[in-house]
Amino acid sequence: MKIAPPYLIFLGDTPIAELAKTGAGLVHWRPERCLAQLRFTGCAADLGVAEMSVGQAANAGARTLVIGTAPPGGQLPGHWIDTLEEALAAGLDVASGLHQKLTDIPRLAEAADRHGRQLFDVRHTDSDFPVASGKPRTGHRLITVGTDCAVGKKYTALAIEREMGARGMKADFRATGQTGILIAGEGVAIDAVVADFIAGATETLCPANDPDHWDIVEGQGSLFHPAFAGVTLGLLHGAQADFFVVCHEAGRQRLSAGYEGYPSGDLAACIKWTQALGALVRPEIACAGISVNTASLAEEDAKTYLAGLGEQNGVAAVDPVRFGVSPIVDALEKAT
Amino acid sequence: MKIAPPYLIFLGDTPIAELAKTGAGLVHWRPERCLAQLRFTGCAADLGVAEMSVGQAANAGARTLVIGTAPPGGQLPGHWIDTLEEALAAGLDVASGLHQKLTDIPRLAEAADRHGRQLFDVRHTDSDFPVASGKPRTGHRLITVGTDCAVGKKYTALAIEREMGARGMKADFRATGQTGILIAGEGVAIDAVVADFIAGATETLCPANDPDHWDIVEGQGSLFHPAFAGVTLGLLHGAQADFFVVCHEAGRQRLSAGYEGYPSGDLAACIKWTQALGALVRPEIACAGISVNTASLAEEDAKTYLAGLGEQNGVAAVDPVRFGVSPIVDALEKAT
Repeated sequence: MKIAPPYLIFLGDTPIAELAKTGAGLVHWRPERCLAQLRFTGCAADLGVAEMSVGQAANAGARTLVIGTAPPGGQLPGHWIDTLEEALAAGLDVASGLHQKLTDIPRLAEAADRHGRQLFDVRHTDSDFPVASGKPRTGHRLITVGTDCAVGKKYTALAIEREMGARGMKADFRATGQTGILIAGEGVAIDAVVADFIAGATETLCPANDPDHWDIVEGQGSLFHPAFAGVTLGLLHGAQADFFVVCHEAGRQRLSAGYEGYPSGDLAACIKWTQALGALVRPEIACAGISVNTASLAEEDAKTYLAGLGEQNGVAAVDPVRFGVSPIVDALEKAT
Repeated sequence: MKIAPPYLIFLGDTPIAELAKTGAGLVHWRPERCLAQLRFTGCAADLGVAEMSVGQAANAGARTLVIGTAPPGGQLPGHWIDTLEEALAAGLDVASGLHQKLTDIPRLAEAADRHGRQLFDVRHTDSDFPVASGKPRTGHRLITVGTDCAVGKKYTALAIEREMGARGMKADFRATGQTGILIAGEGVAIDAVVADFIAGATETLCPANDPDHWDIVEGQGSLFHPAFAGVTLGLLHGAQADFFVVCHEAGRQRLSAGYEGYPSGDLAACIKWTQALGALVRPEIACAGISVNTASLAEEDAKTYLAGLGEQNGVAAVDPVRFGVSPIVDALEKAT
């Protein structure tokens, strides 16, 4: 799955700006892939890039229309389909991270076929993956893990990739979820892979590489999540990581989104378990840092809190949004 | 997926008796479901049950033809298809645990359609499962785990179910792999489920039950296996087990079947990890025993070895084939 840039980011009539998180992520992390946005009247989101119609974007060289927003309820609104069909007719592919598959919408499937274009449903996968080999392979691989879902694993991975790039290190972000895949233009929606192939698909995603090359693998779920820990572990094993960064949200006491019966994972336990379980496939695996969303704290309190965490756990602790991930990349440079 | 008994077990022209393991398991564990076997000239396997043709079996009330053998290479031999089609025409369903799907063979798919019969590909699943809720539920659940694949997890679970049944305890074997599903007539091929739903599918497989009811869940893979540990962990969490039994093969030093680069899981570590990880969803989870294949040892040596294991780990250690699982069920009765 390779999604061709540049993108026309479709926002439709998004009623609340925050729903356009995917589009915002694209512009933040891959501005060079983002040509323009397409908004309907009443759209509450604005990504701060050029406004174009399908025709204008096609003339300007756009290759893919990417749905950059989440419709309430997850279903593609019927009145968006005309625009997607227009994009296919104008020679663009269409990419979506929604649950509902574009390929299941007959009008779009037929239009893609007729115009020889591709529909990318990045939340799904129909690839055949191998069973993991477990064989050692060259290259550095870092994976982000978390004390819960939605604690910044994708953001942290992208921030580390960017910081490494800025320092001239060879680094690639490896996407495992729908937003990450749209940002990177490729990847594997790991939670959509058949169970037997979780680790194998991950091996495919981040294969052997130069000894000084870094794959920064986006983690999924949490070892402390009752629904998704199996995915987390299969991904950890397939990644064969020599380093991991633990992501956390300051003040979160309980798991989120329907799992409030469970406590949020403990940071020290998350380090211990990731190290113990990851060592099966890469004995030297080590924690390279802690990445925390401290939005609930005042800036000075956040600094004190992070300093304390770093001291308790013997690694750098950062808020990647507020203060950047430099201390983590410093530690990685030192350790290798 | 409910496969109706009684079965006509199809063995075709199996060249080596050991390939008919599925048929042998059916006759061993569910003799009451097995009406007869169907063998071609030259078949090296014999399950010791009545011989019947498709017509005879249909007249005698057979409901399903079950493929009870593994063709070399895993592909269904072309010259078997006539017989399967004949079974469909005679009013039987057809069930298979092969990789190759019956439903992908046009002649069989059409015949099933024409005669209103079902094709069961138990290694595959097309059900929609929910994401796991992680909510506590009533009933006892025991899961078998292992230091490797193929160390007797299915056998041990079935032996415990049988022993409990003999004692008048309420117990159901819950199948998670193809052979187990053919034996039980139902279940979920857990390694064929999409990653996001491993734990959720397992919750569906062994839902809340009477407080004195036992679900004996067939484990898969191993926490020590680089390709399948994610499946093992998702299954452990979905099962929400209050007890587990660790399965092992005496003398196995390395993982099997292509993973010889890895040591076999350590028994004590397997107990420790299963307990620690299983406690996420059921804090009281405890090891109920160790079940070992001691076929490589002389009988007296096996007894000494098991006694030593039991003492070291503080639980009953048995060889379920040689000596039965009574000590484990004793311990479970005592503990509950």
